Amino acid sequence: MTLTEDHQEWRRLIEAAELTRFTAEALRAAGARHHDAAVTAEVLVAADLGGVESHGVARLRRYVEGLRNGDINRFGVPEIVTDKGSVSVIDAHNALGQPALCMAVDLAVERASQFGTSAVMVRRSNHMGIAGWFAERAARAGMFAMISTNAVPQVAPMGTSEPMFGTNPLCYAVPTTEGTLCFDGASSTVSRGKLEQLDRLGEPMQSGWALGPDGKPALEAADTVTGLINRKGYALLPLGGGKRDHGGHKGSALGLFAELLCGPLAGAQWSRHTYQGGEAGLGHFVICLSLDALGDADTIRAGVEQLSREVRGSAPVDPEAPVRVPGDRRRLVTDMRLAHGVPVLESVLTDLDGIADFVGIDPVSALTYDA
Amino acid sequence: MTLTEDHQEWRRLIEAAELTRFTAEALRAAGARHHDAAVTAEVLVAADLGGVESHGVARLRRYVEGLRNGDINRFGVPEIVTDKGSVSVIDAHNALGQPALCMAVDLAVERASQFGTSAVMVRRSNHMGIAGWFAERAARAGMFAMISTNAVPQVAPMGTSEPMFGTNPLCYAVPTTEGTLCFDGASSTVSRGKLEQLDRLGEPMQSGWALGPDGKPALEAADTVTGLINRKGYALLPLGGGKRDHGGHKGSALGLFAELLCGPLAGAQWSRHTYQGGEAGLGHFVICLSLDALGDADTIRAGVEQLSREVRGSAPVDPEAPVRVPGDRRRLVTDMRLAHGVPVLESVLTDLDGIADFVGIDPVSALTYDA
Repeated sequence: MTLTEDHQEWRRLIEAAELTRFTAEALRAAGARHHDAAVTAEVLVAADLGGVESHGVARLRRYVEGLRNGDINRFGVPEIVTDKGSVSVIDAHNALGQPALCMAVDLAVERASQFGTSAVMVRRSNHMGIAGWFAERAARAGMFAMISTNAVPQVAPMGTSEPMFGTNPLCYAVPTTEGTLCFDGASSTVSRGKLEQLDRLGEPMQSGWALGPDGKPALEAADTVTGLINRKGYALLPLGGGKRDHGGHKGSALGLFAELLCGPLAGAQWSRHTYQGGEAGLGHFVICLSLDALGDADTIRAGVEQLSREVRGSAPVDPEAPVRVPGDRRRLVTDMRLAHGVPVLESVLTDLDGIADFVGIDPVSALTYDA
Repeated sequence: MTLTEDHQEWRRLIEAAELTRFTAEALRAAGARHHDAAVTAEVLVAADLGGVESHGVARLRRYVEGLRNGDINRFGVPEIVTDKGSVSVIDAHNALGQPALCMAVDLAVERASQFGTSAVMVRRSNHMGIAGWFAERAARAGMFAMISTNAVPQVAPMGTSEPMFGTNPLCYAVPTTEGTLCFDGASSTVSRGKLEQLDRLGEPMQSGWALGPDGKPALEAADTVTGLINRKGYALLPLGGGKRDHGGHKGSALGLFAELLCGPLAGAQWSRHTYQGGEAGLGHFVICLSLDALGDADTIRAGVEQLSREVRGSAPVDPEAPVRVPGDRRRLVTDMRLAHGVPVLESVLTDLDGIADFVGIDPVSALTYDA
């Protein structure tokens, strides 16, 4: 067991392959098809590997319960309902989000290879994990890819305290000579996961992150997390906060960008109307641009790599904190965790044991050595 | 003459049509072709009409001088150098940015009408005014359009104080049943134009907007503006500021998004290497998605309008400040200025008189009535 510096809770190391195997088995036992379970497990564990625990196996219970109680349609097969040149729309039929979005990415890659660009929208879908996994999949196929999703309404656009938008990520990826450059971050200033972390650490919230039911800054992490989950009038604020001074209108516009593309343009609901009537009803989109269509792909990759190197090489404000390019930190963390195991919180491990019991499979094997 | 509330300097009203006529005539007299002058004048005056004076006729001198001294190639004709299905690349041959980007938009609309989606990149271009004018042009043709550009390096990505990125706008537009919804804003927290305004008003800067040469927050507007113009070690900060706490890494990623698409992917330089050797060398991009390809365009427009209405209808934090959707304020200002004239600062009017004298045309006619 290991007590990591940034969390005041014990963690146990689990091998990534074992965590993926367990997750897929739990999903299959809950009724998911083999391939759907495999893709979903891979995306969930990729989040844990990359240090985005809020989107990892800590969410497995919701998937398993959703499949079991029918909130997620385990019999659903995503279907292409519009197919016009470089544009397609997929109806996920309320099946798991990961396989639906994965199908969308593969279709977008195929169409952009043919036409140069493509857009694939997904409607009637569910939570799909981290957008970055999907964007990197497209980037590895030679694409500049942009992906987003809407989500449960938790973000108040500038000027109101009503949670109307999801935490709709800004996410894109592009291939470099060394791999991929990928950014994936919520369009809110902070995510709910960040507040849960602060709560565990007993650290204070800052103004400009969230509003309470009175429309004033929410400064208690525990109350805010509970209030967001129970929809008790709390709201996260967009990137730039709740005021124009620091660009709250820009963060709101970033959230709105995904609302438009995942909602009305995808023939889906926008976030405010998701999760109603027992169905998530989420929308996602993938936009691809083929490097081969633009010019010589190797030259473009080298140009992206050169740009990355120059940004990394700029003088840091803090000499101890070198300047990074999106994905640098996640890659480091992933490499370390692939080698040494994924640190899973004791509370999450207990939850995984409960899931194993619920669906009738063996519990996950945690490693016993210290980190 | 009128002394507007938010500026401590006298302004004179000029009819929009007269301001456009004058601007086009000045550009023609400086050597621009008739059509190029007309488009450029329309885009510049659209900024003044919408209240974005920093991108309006206050910039005319740079255009006129650039055309006269050869920094902008008045003989250049933008040329399609790559044309593969839905992807095109235009070499602007260092001609005016507005006609080159306008050609890109029209080509992107044509190709998206044919294929469903399209991307057109522009390289070796110049300053092109407000991106929103171009995005709205595409939206009026039935597109969801996304447009950006790189620019003179003024923004330090999170972690450094070196200005590496341009103020690269986040800009998109989509048609509604009532017109268009359009957002256009710099990916920095504030623009240099905003600091110039504060300087005139004698109002203080805030931490998180810019850094000085010592890497510490810059808090004097006059020094910061001068430092940015003369490249004396000052830098604007990305949306979210210079630290991770308020999402500086997200604003940096937003700026990087445009750097990638306008730089390596367009076969152009990224912002850091623009304006070298007497040529701006800027890149722009247009991405279009045809509503007709996605489904029934009228239904989508109605969905966008419904979303807009719900956002506007949410409870405002400040009862005096109704919640807005991108473009609402600009539309109000534009309507008022179309009816009553464009208020132009005395200092800008003096500059326009100097330009008239420089190129040998009659000065612009300011209206004599009070606002």
